[in-house]
Amino acid sequence: MRIDVLSLFPDMFTPLKQSILGKAIDKGALDFHVTDFRDYTENKHNNVDDYPFGGGAGMLLMAQPIFDAMAAVEKKAGDKGHVVLLDPAGRKFDHHVAEELAQKEHLTFIAGHYEGYDERIRELVDDEISLGDYVLTGGELGAMVIIDATARFLPDVLGNNVSADEDSFQDDLLEFPQYTRPAEFRGRKVPDVLMSGNHAKIAEWRLKESLRRTWQRRPDLLEKRQLTNKERDLLDDVKHE
Amino acid sequence: MRIDVLSLFPDMFTPLKQSILGKAIDKGALDFHVTDFRDYTENKHNNVDDYPFGGGAGMLLMAQPIFDAMAAVEKKAGDKGHVVLLDPAGRKFDHHVAEELAQKEHLTFIAGHYEGYDERIRELVDDEISLGDYVLTGGELGAMVIIDATARFLPDVLGNNVSADEDSFQDDLLEFPQYTRPAEFRGRKVPDVLMSGNHAKIAEWRLKESLRRTWQRRPDLLEKRQLTNKERDLLDDVKHE
Repeated sequence: MRIDVLSLFPDMFTPLKQSILGKAIDKGALDFHVTDFRDYTENKHNNVDDYPFGGGAGMLLMAQPIFDAMAAVEKKAGDKGHVVLLDPAGRKFDHHVAEELAQKEHLTFIAGHYEGYDERIRELVDDEISLGDYVLTGGELGAMVIIDATARFLPDVLGNNVSADEDSFQDDLLEFPQYTRPAEFRGRKVPDVLMSGNHAKIAEWRLKESLRRTWQRRPDLLEKRQLTNKERDLLDDVKHE
Repeated sequence: MRIDVLSLFPDMFTPLKQSILGKAIDKGALDFHVTDFRDYTENKHNNVDDYPFGGGAGMLLMAQPIFDAMAAVEKKAGDKGHVVLLDPAGRKFDHHVAEELAQKEHLTFIAGHYEGYDERIRELVDDEISLGDYVLTGGELGAMVIIDATARFLPDVLGNNVSADEDSFQDDLLEFPQYTRPAEFRGRKVPDVLMSGNHAKIAEWRLKESLRRTWQRRPDLLEKRQLTNKERDLLDDVKHE
């Protein structure tokens, strides 16, 4: 997959090069490019923002540098890709959207770093995505979050002993509690069942605890989901405990 | 405000030091510290993770390095702060949560970078927060998102001509379309009303377009909100257009 980002702060993307995603880039599973759209300004001061027509606080990204940086991406990559704008008015990002984006061959993100952008920039955009009902000082962090969550669904990105399938949300249940060594840490013990070696019992305990946590914290997820008979029985047990 | 992060990848936080938040750190409005909890391991290989009891894919963060790194933060800062764990099972992050966190004097984030963590770590935690229904390869990006969105509500963080109050969500409406120069960009014109100089008309157009966008894209936000008579009239107009 090729990923392009249009940003005024190419250095902000260093975190992506660390850890699992950095390895994906190194292995060639991800081809990652940042274009500084200040390089595409036509005005002599290299301004990328200006005051809003009609008044108001804050500056807006101008259309011209974004249009021309996008043309440069298109020229280099052969296409402009599936263009994503981070916008609070966009569709809500979740793991379904991440899986959908992971099917694309080329994603391009417009990461603004000002109060807003000229409405005409939306013409270039295929997909407006919101990370949630909050506002960030810039689009860079948002783009990184989407890239990170999406790249997990690419083949060859996660290592062998790490699996996107076992995580929270993959089957619309929250994850069960997990424990690692020591069996007793400063007086706090691991539940006996996990030490029993009885795989069927462990699987049942985990499913039950997943259902419990989802029911307690995110009942909306259970409503979206078709429960098996087994799951319905375990959930009944949980509700009567 | 003091912010501590427990992380294995201190270098991932360089983006925070750029741009608006970097200025806040420079001005002293934000006192930012990252503690590498690998420095607090007691085992001779400095391992921070281990296999889950009961089997399963992935590795889990061990309790000991986190407990001891937290004790070190507490010793240095005088308290451990309001401890936030990024977890898909946590309460959903939004601008209300950001405003609430902005009232704290000290925030401490536990940023894991593995598949999960030993359940006993939850004991240290005051607040579990989820960024949304998706999974990231690590907690660092999530912590940065929360810090960024929260810091915008601190006095002295945003500049004079930038205001957290005018943004999307501040009043549970999406933002109206904005335009900057030129008035005509490659055949695309700015709406006449914005060029009219009539401030009352501009304010009405903006309110109407905010209501339109919110109604089209996020009707759930309108349901949460008490509309004024004026807003109800404009929304009626929008619905009949």
